[in-house]
Amino acid sequence: MDSIFSKIISGEIPSYKVAEDSHCYAFLDINPNSKGHVLCIPRLPVDKLFDLPNEEYNRLFSFSRKVALAMRQVIPCKRIALSVVGLEVPHAHIHLIPINTMDDVRFQKKVNISDSEMREISNSIAQNFKP
Amino acid sequence: MDSIFSKIISGEIPSYKVAEDSHCYAFLDINPNSKGHVLCIPRLPVDKLFDLPNEEYNRLFSFSRKVALAMRQVIPCKRIALSVVGLEVPHAHIHLIPINTMDDVRFQKKVNISDSEMREISNSIAQNFKP
Repeated sequence: MDSIFSKIISGEIPSYKVAEDSHCYAFLDINPNSKGHVLCIPRLPVDKLFDLPNEEYNRLFSFSRKVALAMRQVIPCKRIALSVVGLEVPHAHIHLIPINTMDDVRFQKKVNISDSEMREISNSIAQNFKP
Repeated sequence: MDSIFSKIISGEIPSYKVAEDSHCYAFLDINPNSKGHVLCIPRLPVDKLFDLPNEEYNRLFSFSRKVALAMRQVIPCKRIALSVVGLEVPHAHIHLIPINTMDDVRFQKKVNISDSEMREISNSIAQNFKP
């Protein structure tokens, strides 16, 4: 099912891209829980994570691992949390969230980050991403 | 690092087991967000998810997918959320949470479930687990 994420992948809607490969795409969440909050998505427009074909599911998690390892290089935090909820956009997506407390994974507390800082964060993660 | 989860895997501490294989173990969370809340863990006692060796990481997510597909057969819900936080027990664990609203993934609202119902839920998921 096409959603805003298909338009982000195609470039019709701009995004702060941090990584991509032939099957997956990662970009900064524009309503972040914390600085460096990333979304990893499959190019395949499937709503529910567990409805992804097995191979696409494995590729998405493998890709997300590489993104998280890059995030750890540049975002100071206790750890990178991973969350898949999916009650909003009908295109499977993995949240990678730099966290220090439980509040950072509750999707209630949000942070405002300027456009220039979002560019800086996405560039620094991108530079540390190892395909 | 050994934790309560190592003792659950060894059987020293009892658990409501829903599935296991040679690398992973899944059981009901005893302080569940919702009915059917499961934890999937690697047998390898590694604290942070992204510190797991690549192969163990992939095995854990592949195993968790099979557990989630079994959960969908028996737990009525909108979808199965997946969450890795890790601020409490220092042994990587994937939460699989049957959800209907965002409140179900915030780890604030908790549900009380009797021992007999926990047994029933774990047995019904186990019966639908396809290795």
